[in-house]
Amino acid sequence: MFEIRTDLAVEEKESFPGNGGEVTGVSLREWRKAFSRIKLTEVAILDEQGARAMGKPEGVYVTMEAKELSKGDEGYDREVSGELAMQLKRMVKSLRKQKQIPEENLHILAVGLGNPSVTPDALGPQVLGNLRVNRHMQEGGKVIISGIVPGVMAQTGMETAEILKGIIRETGPDLVIAVDALAARSIRRLGTTIQLTNTGIHPGSGVGNHRHSLTRESLGIPVLAIGVPTVVGAAAIVHDTISTLIGTLMSQVETEKMGDFLDQLSPEEQYQLICELLEPEFGALYVTPPDIDQTVKRLSFTISEGIHMAFYPD
Amino acid sequence: MFEIRTDLAVEEKESFPGNGGEVTGVSLREWRKAFSRIKLTEVAILDEQGARAMGKPEGVYVTMEAKELSKGDEGYDREVSGELAMQLKRMVKSLRKQKQIPEENLHILAVGLGNPSVTPDALGPQVLGNLRVNRHMQEGGKVIISGIVPGVMAQTGMETAEILKGIIRETGPDLVIAVDALAARSIRRLGTTIQLTNTGIHPGSGVGNHRHSLTRESLGIPVLAIGVPTVVGAAAIVHDTISTLIGTLMSQVETEKMGDFLDQLSPEEQYQLICELLEPEFGALYVTPPDIDQTVKRLSFTISEGIHMAFYPD
Amino acid sequence: MFEIRTDLAVEEKESFPGNGGEVTGVSLREWRKAFSRIKLTEVAILDEQGARAMGKPEGVYVTMEAKELSKGDEGYDREVSGELAMQLKRMVKSLRKQKQIPEENLHILAVGLGNPSVTPDALGPQVLGNLRVNRHMQEGGKVIISGIVPGVMAQTGMETAEILKGIIRETGPDLVIAVDALAARSIRRLGTTIQLTNTGIHPGSGVGNHRHSLTRESLGIPVLAIGVPTVVGAAAIVHDTISTLIGTLMSQVETEKMGDFLDQLSPEEQYQLICELLEPEFGALYVTPPDIDQTVKRLSFTISEGIHMAFYPD
Amino acid sequence: MFEIRTDLAVEEKESFPGNGGEVTGVSLREWRKAFSRIKLTEVAILDEQGARAMGKPEGVYVTMEAKELSKGDEGYDREVSGELAMQLKRMVKSLRKQKQIPEENLHILAVGLGNPSVTPDALGPQVLGNLRVNRHMQEGGKVIISGIVPGVMAQTGMETAEILKGIIRETGPDLVIAVDALAARSIRRLGTTIQLTNTGIHPGSGVGNHRHSLTRESLGIPVLAIGVPTVVGAAAIVHDTISTLIGTLMSQVETEKMGDFLDQLSPEEQYQLICELLEPEFGALYVTPPDIDQTVKRLSFTISEGIHMAFYPD
Repeated sequence: MFEIRTDLAVEEKESFPGNGGEVTGVSLREWRKAFSRIKLTEVAILDEQGARAMGKPEGVYVTMEAKELSKGDEGYDREVSGELAMQLKRMVKSLRKQKQIPEENLHILAVGLGNPSVTPDALGPQVLGNLRVNRHMQEGGKVIISGIVPGVMAQTGMETAEILKGIIRETGPDLVIAVDALAARSIRRLGTTIQLTNTGIHPGSGVGNHRHSLTRESLGIPVLAIGVPTVVGAAAIVHDTISTLIGTLMSQVETEKMGDFLDQLSPEEQYQLICELLEPEFGALYVTPPDIDQTVKRLSFTISEGIHMAFYPD
Repeated sequence: MFEIRTDLAVEEKESFPGNGGEVTGVSLREWRKAFSRIKLTEVAILDEQGARAMGKPEGVYVTMEAKELSKGDEGYDREVSGELAMQLKRMVKSLRKQKQIPEENLHILAVGLGNPSVTPDALGPQVLGNLRVNRHMQEGGKVIISGIVPGVMAQTGMETAEILKGIIRETGPDLVIAVDALAARSIRRLGTTIQLTNTGIHPGSGVGNHRHSLTRESLGIPVLAIGVPTVVGAAAIVHDTISTLIGTLMSQVETEKMGDFLDQLSPEEQYQLICELLEPEFGALYVTPPDIDQTVKRLSFTISEGIHMAFYPD
Repeated sequence: MFEIRTDLAVEEKESFPGNGGEVTGVSLREWRKAFSRIKLTEVAILDEQGARAMGKPEGVYVTMEAKELSKGDEGYDREVSGELAMQLKRMVKSLRKQKQIPEENLHILAVGLGNPSVTPDALGPQVLGNLRVNRHMQEGGKVIISGIVPGVMAQTGMETAEILKGIIRETGPDLVIAVDALAARSIRRLGTTIQLTNTGIHPGSGVGNHRHSLTRESLGIPVLAIGVPTVVGAAAIVHDTISTLIGTLMSQVETEKMGDFLDQLSPEEQYQLICELLEPEFGALYVTPPDIDQTVKRLSFTISEGIHMAFYPD
Repeated sequence: MFEIRTDLAVEEKESFPGNGGEVTGVSLREWRKAFSRIKLTEVAILDEQGARAMGKPEGVYVTMEAKELSKGDEGYDREVSGELAMQLKRMVKSLRKQKQIPEENLHILAVGLGNPSVTPDALGPQVLGNLRVNRHMQEGGKVIISGIVPGVMAQTGMETAEILKGIIRETGPDLVIAVDALAARSIRRLGTTIQLTNTGIHPGSGVGNHRHSLTRESLGIPVLAIGVPTVVGAAAIVHDTISTLIGTLMSQVETEKMGDFLDQLSPEEQYQLICELLEPEFGALYVTPPDIDQTVKRLSFTISEGIHMAFYPD
């Protein structure tokens, strides 16, 4: 059975009872800088227990929520680029401390995941289209960047992990920064939330399904992942509406029997009931707004600028 | 409130009680040619009563259902092109009989509706990209074709009807053939059904919303419309699943009270309840499969070939 | 016979003897603002005599030369956008003074000329892709902008002038601003010079040939044209090299006879000799650099930003 | 100094005195099948002497000349696809005989070289966009195909050879088939000649410059290369015209002195004189026709169909 998934740790956290109260093994921190219109959230999954509860691997997930993102306000988008640059540098610094990447002459392989021909999946390829790489030039900067758009399995016949492993072995980067379009639960997140994580890319994440994970374990070097939700799974949207309906019925009908029937259903059984209603085809379908082309175009600039600010300070 | 819409007359018909039984003012004909893998349906809306019942204007809607369409079987796709050409010629012949277009030197303006940058909405523009036009050449063929991709209002600031009216007045075509991506109710129709109608394009149809209609009334010349569903409205998919749930609950719960509550709801009230559950944002969202780029690419060839076969016989 | 053409008035002027000395009916003004890295030139063709000499219609041609344009320096590109905005406003002000456009509620139709599928010809369509139009919104700004990408005749079967005339009649703009990729004589101009003129678009200009002109005479409203050279005609490049060779031979050979032969050739005859050497196919061919995609992408932002700055001051 | 290059062995051969007479170490065979509109030429460079003379590595170069290719005649294009399939199978058979690839379960890595954003350089990427790969499916066919569009160094910062070496090591294909846009000498070859060679891709070939070669030596497995000229180097076109001019002058001027001067110049010195006239910037510039988008689109289908016919016989 397909899962009702979200790629955002912050949404996973919110889905816990009490709107994301205490979960053992998971820490949550929220803040907003003075005069900033960007809300920051850091979800840290600290141990195996937290990972099991969240259905996501151990690591740090930083979320930038910016309601006006990619609406056409360039000053605002630039502010978001700056914040992304700050958070990227913080993660890189932390990797340096842990001796996972070298102090000097950092070589980054930027990876644009997704299908350039499918608008909501084209975020990664479009970011790479804007990104300035410098590995082939004698620039002598402190950071060397190379980049690749590996394509999707339907077009290559290969796993993205295979392609990247080969390129990494051949060109020896120290760090992968992967950019991907994500699936969220809530349509309000579409195009307005950037997630940055040090856990890489995991099976089932992204708009198209990447079967293999892209992580330090699979690729041999640390993987930072930058993602923005551009779609909501069709199953998620149906699921959420039905959950609301069941709640409505339970309160509205106010009959013991009705209450009995639905109360007897544990959350797992309710989930089961809903999933039975969902057509199997829903698993692959996604929901996206009609102006997604403008959103992806603007987001791709905001993200490429963020990477430029972090690693090519003038 | 937004409507749970389908652009396919055949789906509208199916939604009537008794799976599309007799409706006054609407005639239905289904057939399949010998050895053909294409199912043909003709829905004719004969009068105002039929139009009101169907929520679509009077006219003829021919549907070609081809389950294997755009899956990569070129012979099959070619068969569909041939059938589309036959149906196009039949409609043109009928327009000639009604003296709506001239006997000789027919000049067709082909129009590719939709946004070329949004994959499921790019069908019309891609068909025009494949189409051979000949108006600017001294070919002396019997049919003259010109073509335009007018763009969408968010990019032009103009109604498509305004752009077309101007071009028609200036270049004097006899007939518009408009190609558009449609919204269906059922995900099984995505990429597998072609609708051809002599009623033109109507408000609310297509993947993006065209506010004004493109019809003989608005443009001054007959408008044939070729459409293929590439999306399902997010609201439709949620609506249908909830309808199933209500049915399930009514039979499963088997309590008088429950039955009472839901039975008391007329179909209109049920619809009302469901619509209240649907978030207003759903109205603009659509559901589409991840391999829509290949589907649209193949469909655009099948349709442009159909037009070539109909009007450029070698 | 094809002509060795340039779309830049400033190059036409330079080609006169004495590197563009005095020409009756043509005035020239060059300036550079303090601290600016942009060189400005204004060629004004004042009367019929000047028009004949220059092979271009009467009017004003402002050239912005910016050697570092579209090389990746965003600050520099922004400076050029600002200068373009200034010059646009100056031309609009002058049209207002001449009562050619209204004082208030100016409605501009922006036109992106060229073929979006051919990289060096895609400048106009890409500018329109970046441009914010507002005619369809109730914004109440002082300037209303609509936009169209009319396509090229090989794709539409229609003259661009026909398409625009129809749209203008239907939507009633006061002014056309047309953006087009130009052909220069010198490869040093590729991507580094912006020409703004109040004379519109003329036959034979642009990368693809527009057969009909887009001018006040043909469209009924004033036409400002913004162009940047992205190609050099193959014939021009051959012609110029051969001219150099003839010069070289005449000085190197230093023989009376040789001198006699070439001296006997008038400039017209020399031109004739060269044109005989050029293959007829050269007429349609153009020369362009391999990184033209990046150049066109960056230029399209610089120009759309210039238009935004001129007409949407925040 | 840049070279006046052609990627076509058949043009290199023609440039020899006597229009490609006997050259030691090079064999030439021309044929045309009955009723076929395709002219076939095989240039075999047999030894080091031939390689030096031709400036191309030892191996077989098969050229299909098809004057009407990609003009819109689908039957003709299909005939060319069939011929390409035949020649591909012949080369694969020969590799099998030489035990360079296995008898069974051949795994091919198809590579689309070039920049997808630059129209004349987009042939390889567009072929890959049409190509059906099957490595990720449990099809059990006799031939397994995977595919990659590696991008160009300006976008990746990596040599194409590095990217491919890594992918080959990781996924273990037996054979590379690389598709690339080529540079020809003659504009008559643009879009009308397909070259198939077993020598791979060499430095300086292709529309963009690939610095490293893609050959059996560099990649470890045999490399078949399919190429079609879509550009002529700007230097080549100037060079050829000036050569004609010098010939004209020598015969026309008919003076001893003039003859003396030019006669004294050896072919090498003449070449030297011409190269001095060519501006250094010419080296990177190319000449291409304005309808190159349609040509590349059609060619990409012809080539992908040829590969399908060769390896996916139904």
